[in-house]
Amino acid sequence: MKFYDFYMSNAAYRVRIALKLKGLEAEQVIVNLIEDEHRANWFEALNPQRMLPILEDGGIVVAQSLPILEYLEEVYPEPPLLPANTAGRAWVRSFAQSIASDMHPLMGRRVRRYLADRIGASAEDIDGWYRNWIAAGLSGLEGMLAARESPGGFCSGDAPTLADLCLVPQTYNARRFNRDLSPYPTILDIVARCNELPAFADSMPENQPDWKPMEGVIPGGR
Amino acid sequence: MKFYDFYMSNAAYRVRIALKLKGLEAEQVIVNLIEDEHRANWFEALNPQRMLPILEDGGIVVAQSLPILEYLEEVYPEPPLLPANTAGRAWVRSFAQSIASDMHPLMGRRVRRYLADRIGASAEDIDGWYRNWIAAGLSGLEGMLAARESPGGFCSGDAPTLADLCLVPQTYNARRFNRDLSPYPTILDIVARCNELPAFADSMPENQPDWKPMEGVIPGGR
Repeated sequence: MKFYDFYMSNAAYRVRIALKLKGLEAEQVIVNLIEDEHRANWFEALNPQRMLPILEDGGIVVAQSLPILEYLEEVYPEPPLLPANTAGRAWVRSFAQSIASDMHPLMGRRVRRYLADRIGASAEDIDGWYRNWIAAGLSGLEGMLAARESPGGFCSGDAPTLADLCLVPQTYNARRFNRDLSPYPTILDIVARCNELPAFADSMPENQPDWKPMEGVIPGGR
Repeated sequence: MKFYDFYMSNAAYRVRIALKLKGLEAEQVIVNLIEDEHRANWFEALNPQRMLPILEDGGIVVAQSLPILEYLEEVYPEPPLLPANTAGRAWVRSFAQSIASDMHPLMGRRVRRYLADRIGASAEDIDGWYRNWIAAGLSGLEGMLAARESPGGFCSGDAPTLADLCLVPQTYNARRFNRDLSPYPTILDIVARCNELPAFADSMPENQPDWKPMEGVIPGGR
């Protein structure tokens, strides 16, 4: 099994946690997004979408973090990262998808670059942009957590699910940008509990072999 | 079963097709996004994410189009909208997710409004923004289709899957904005085949009871 990864990729961070929770050993292939390695021909041949992360398992190549997580769940079901019942699975998928569709895509490097280079947005504009979508997204997620009928220690019940695997990387990014997360106490509580687990802690960007301090992740930066 | 819908929602359009393909009757509840009905208290109580679409089935409320489609697949499996094998499901989910994460979220009304109102982007800027993400996304999808080992009449095989359900609404939007789609011949071929099926044709925005011509969908418009 190979996992195409970059410490800075928030979507790859989700999958790193899943691989560790499931005890799967994957050869880590670093694709340096800062140096545009995802635009190389060999990478496009592997994934025409030219995005990270990618999982290669036997002859199967899977792009996109949530489909990778669904794949892992089907092929390596233990421990489960989705609830056992249909309603629970739907809730977890909805929570995770809200991060993967309504938050993360608006904050990526290619978007920040486009705003700066093509629309002439200032560093302040981009900072405000980031802050706006973080607040909109996290308040929706906090609302979903507040409305749970039987809250557990994690987003859904007493063990991590795909919801936690998406939430922790997203809040990690928000914190690096010094966003005030105090309006989201349930999120903060769950994230703290997750980060006590080695699978989450070991997946943090600063614990990756390719990590460099703060490179390119400052709002408005390239 | 209730389906919270708005003709202009590209994500709702995906689910409309699925409901029709599976022969499911759902009461259609219109939530007018132009009039900010999704920001009303009753709607936030239903979905703290304050986004369309939503499916309500028995006591279960599911937000986000892809999780709704996964839910429908689990509870109403016929006809299947995911392939029978793991590799096929992973490919279809990756294709669909690429649209749901890397294309659609960048083009929504809330994003266009933010660009215009808060960053001062011109109508031309927003048109260029739209064009850029459409081209980036569709070229990746065309590449995925070109790389298929056994191409069928649809994205995956000879019947519609979640991939087609996401592709058709996305190209519908691109066409409304007069994007030249000739660089994507495989996509055009598949979309034409899909739109011959009543489930796809009947789900088009102009065939919805709440449809109004072009309202609010012009690039840069509100």
